[in-house]
Amino acid sequence: MENNRFCVIMCGGVGSRFWPYSRKAMPKQFIDFLGTGRSLLQLTVDRLEGIVPLQNIIILTNEQYASIVRDQLPEIKPEQILLEPVLRNTAPCNAWAAWHIKALNPKAKIMVAPSDHLIIKLNDFKDSVIRAFEFLENNDAIVTLGVKPNRPETGYGYIQEGKNVDEYFSMVKTFTEKPTKEVANLFLESGEFFWNSGMFFWGVDTIINAMRTYAPEIAEIFDHANLFYGSPQEQEFIDENYASCPNISIDYAIMEKSQNVYVQKVDFGWSDLGTWGSVFDNAPKNRDGNVTPNTRVLAFESNNNVIAAQNDKLVVVSGLNGYIVADTPDALLIVPKNDEQKIKNYVNEAKTHFGDKYL
Amino acid sequence: MENNRFCVIMCGGVGSRFWPYSRKAMPKQFIDFLGTGRSLLQLTVDRLEGIVPLQNIIILTNEQYASIVRDQLPEIKPEQILLEPVLRNTAPCNAWAAWHIKALNPKAKIMVAPSDHLIIKLNDFKDSVIRAFEFLENNDAIVTLGVKPNRPETGYGYIQEGKNVDEYFSMVKTFTEKPTKEVANLFLESGEFFWNSGMFFWGVDTIINAMRTYAPEIAEIFDHANLFYGSPQEQEFIDENYASCPNISIDYAIMEKSQNVYVQKVDFGWSDLGTWGSVFDNAPKNRDGNVTPNTRVLAFESNNNVIAAQNDKLVVVSGLNGYIVADTPDALLIVPKNDEQKIKNYVNEAKTHFGDKYL
Repeated sequence: MENNRFCVIMCGGVGSRFWPYSRKAMPKQFIDFLGTGRSLLQLTVDRLEGIVPLQNIIILTNEQYASIVRDQLPEIKPEQILLEPVLRNTAPCNAWAAWHIKALNPKAKIMVAPSDHLIIKLNDFKDSVIRAFEFLENNDAIVTLGVKPNRPETGYGYIQEGKNVDEYFSMVKTFTEKPTKEVANLFLESGEFFWNSGMFFWGVDTIINAMRTYAPEIAEIFDHANLFYGSPQEQEFIDENYASCPNISIDYAIMEKSQNVYVQKVDFGWSDLGTWGSVFDNAPKNRDGNVTPNTRVLAFESNNNVIAAQNDKLVVVSGLNGYIVADTPDALLIVPKNDEQKIKNYVNEAKTHFGDKYL
Repeated sequence: MENNRFCVIMCGGVGSRFWPYSRKAMPKQFIDFLGTGRSLLQLTVDRLEGIVPLQNIIILTNEQYASIVRDQLPEIKPEQILLEPVLRNTAPCNAWAAWHIKALNPKAKIMVAPSDHLIIKLNDFKDSVIRAFEFLENNDAIVTLGVKPNRPETGYGYIQEGKNVDEYFSMVKTFTEKPTKEVANLFLESGEFFWNSGMFFWGVDTIINAMRTYAPEIAEIFDHANLFYGSPQEQEFIDENYASCPNISIDYAIMEKSQNVYVQKVDFGWSDLGTWGSVFDNAPKNRDGNVTPNTRVLAFESNNNVIAAQNDKLVVVSGLNGYIVADTPDALLIVPKNDEQKIKNYVNEAKTHFGDKYL
């Protein structure tokens, strides 16, 4: 294994699409949706085995999740967990990680990975990651992973490939936001567009230079702390200064502006597992077509449901088809799979009526 | 209030039609189905206010429910709670109650009431009870309450009236078991048949004599203990001998055989509340037609459901119509109201798979 390889796992996200399973206090990345016995975060770390040394994994999360991260990843040392005092999107957290890692190893090559995605084909994933790291050896590049689309998905961003480098790599022509159905269909037909997996690779100097060029107001803050990285003053400095970073995504701050951005076209069974429906699509189904991760279910004349409950709870369903049933100790959701985009509204409604109690 | 008036509340029943709310350890009579803040048992006691002195109320229950009864009825003294060591149906428990009460007051007139029924029109109920007690003053009689039927219900037993005594009372011609739909229709059309409410009235000597005549094997046991009633030996005697009583209902042992059985025709909004559907029929409905006893529900495009959860749990339902949703900490049931008769089968299935864990 290359000791210069690092991986930054972004683990500070919140979201309500998996309510009531995901909560402000326990977001999606910490939950074992598929019933594998490992949370999405744990699976993300597991996938790096043999590619990135354990001591080179950096977890970026919000300080309110520190104890969850420590509990779920006992193999990660406390000093590998960087705690953001406030939410500031992905540009500031990647800047912090880069400056922090540079102090550890100025030759570092960094992979950035979300903590809440699903990857099915582990070997293909590992090949792709190694290929990206190797590409960085010979190129002052930012590498993205673009997933070959199999449907006109409107829930993902897309990367359009430009000039080919070789069989796997191309220059990036454009990044696009989530498209309409019509546009997504055009993207799929064209063959030029790939799902933006949110995974990036860069050399530590490449990203720091890019920050200095395209996001100087961020770079300035982290350049200020050069004496502190790796010392007890680092967290103190962050606690005092992190909030003054602009709230901006790495895509917008860097990726869309840099000239040396490449896409590696990959196909490793990726899903951002953004909704209960995608859990249904990706998880193993029972004989009756229900998905029941880690849950004791007796289903009678009931098919194509996602049924999730906790702690050995028994769920008996009868005559229920195509629903999401998600049960937690203090909240139960029953909603047709087709209406899952409304879950956010329901959560807002719950907030209106009951404040933060169920969030 | 008449100090000779007693009420025996039968409170030992078990049943699975209200699973997962009702459990072996917490049967239906102890649950607040209607969200009134009082369990069915508590409502049964409340209804006697002003008719039967509190100290003349006798609760008959299984010893496993002793602490629930004490918790729910702190106004009832421990010596008013008779604890059956084993289940032996309604003839033995009514025999015990009769012999026990005779030792307290040989002139007692006894009302027997189930603990798990619903009565809506409280004043009409009280009038009927007083009328029955008064009837016993002048008649060596067993009085049943027959509820005027409003539909061809197949879930109830029926009482056929015979010769009229007066506006309210008739002799009983027959008791019948739960009829088929066709028979229930005939019953309704005839005007001669009334729902058997399971409430009975008798003088203490009347019932003891009837026992000696029609159920001598039971009478013999309780006659044996005449020196013990009211003493510490009473429970000891019961613990040793109760199991040798035949497992037989009061209807079969006494009512169907006695010659002096009367029916008072009543109409006080009675339901035996035997199913979730009857809870739906009897409980107040929200604007959207859902019944949500004691439960925080946000319902979107969802109507005509019974939704019950506990402890401030929030239930969010969407696109659900005509279902029973019954949630407890360790079990959740979702079943169409029309299939509620299958709940027993589901509970048996749960037993097959998981033993007693969820019963």
